[in-house]
Amino acid sequence: VTQRTRTADWPCSIARAIDELGDGWTLLLVRDASLGARRFDDFQRSLGIGRNILTDRLARLVERGVFAKAQYSEHPPRYEYRLTDKGREIFPILATMAAWADRWMAGPEGSPLTLHHTECDHDMHAEIVCSECGERLEKRAVRARRGPGHPAASAASAAP
Amino acid sequence: VTQRTRTADWPCSIARAIDELGDGWTLLLVRDASLGARRFDDFQRSLGIGRNILTDRLARLVERGVFAKAQYSEHPPRYEYRLTDKGREIFPILATMAAWADRWMAGPEGSPLTLHHTECDHDMHAEIVCSECGERLEKRAVRARRGPGHPAASAASAAP
Repeated sequence: VTQRTRTADWPCSIARAIDELGDGWTLLLVRDASLGARRFDDFQRSLGIGRNILTDRLARLVERGVFAKAQYSEHPPRYEYRLTDKGREIFPILATMAAWADRWMAGPEGSPLTLHHTECDHDMHAEIVCSECGERLEKRAVRARRGPGHPAASAASAAP
Repeated sequence: VTQRTRTADWPCSIARAIDELGDGWTLLLVRDASLGARRFDDFQRSLGIGRNILTDRLARLVERGVFAKAQYSEHPPRYEYRLTDKGREIFPILATMAAWADRWMAGPEGSPLTLHHTECDHDMHAEIVCSECGERLEKRAVRARRGPGHPAASAASAAP
């Protein structure tokens, strides 16, 4: 196990997201919450991790605004963890991860998880499209350049 | 730093993807390769990590089929690392991560990275749609159930 480099301050949206989401536990906790988990024991049972580690991870995610802690009982005081808007919007990342794993990691029997879209009533997977034209997004048609929040935004631009 | 739990064998597509992609380095290396990096020194310069760690990570990703190692010089023998189809298809995950980070982590100046879609010639971000109906995918309209590759596929189904 090696110390992870802190990439939150890198001038790259992807590196920043990796810093917040890249320790594995975060995405697993958001996955569980997306499937209905709210209480410490729900997460603990699902992930099978030590209570100390779970306490630490949940506290960090509350601090980062992915979960909000809400009291659901006064005597004794008990809390549950609900996804914030920031946390709920991690869903597209989980959905594209599931699509990738189903394509590249599923065994001969197929996917362990089937996703169903209730609006069209079909089993499906997530695909990405361009927010502007709605067409399916292919890597070769996407160019990256420095944005307004890049430290060198005023300099000549190139991909970071 | 705590030991990560191995989730590759969990009956959940998301947990499997996290196991392959969740150590942070993998996604950063795929990001660099997507932006044109191919050689050891390219990755090393971009990420600023020790050569031993980088050697180890690249070897692991070759073993997992994310990168293919190709010799580009015989005397002296030199190799470069190219994304495989499996590696190239990580792009939707990176694109949804970038969209999330730009929405939730960008400073007041805006995103450090601007993505441009050459087909429609607009700056844009990635959105997810249903593979079957093409409509934008909202979390509340997605249900998860056990798939054919779930160990308990023959039992009564419920979300994993």
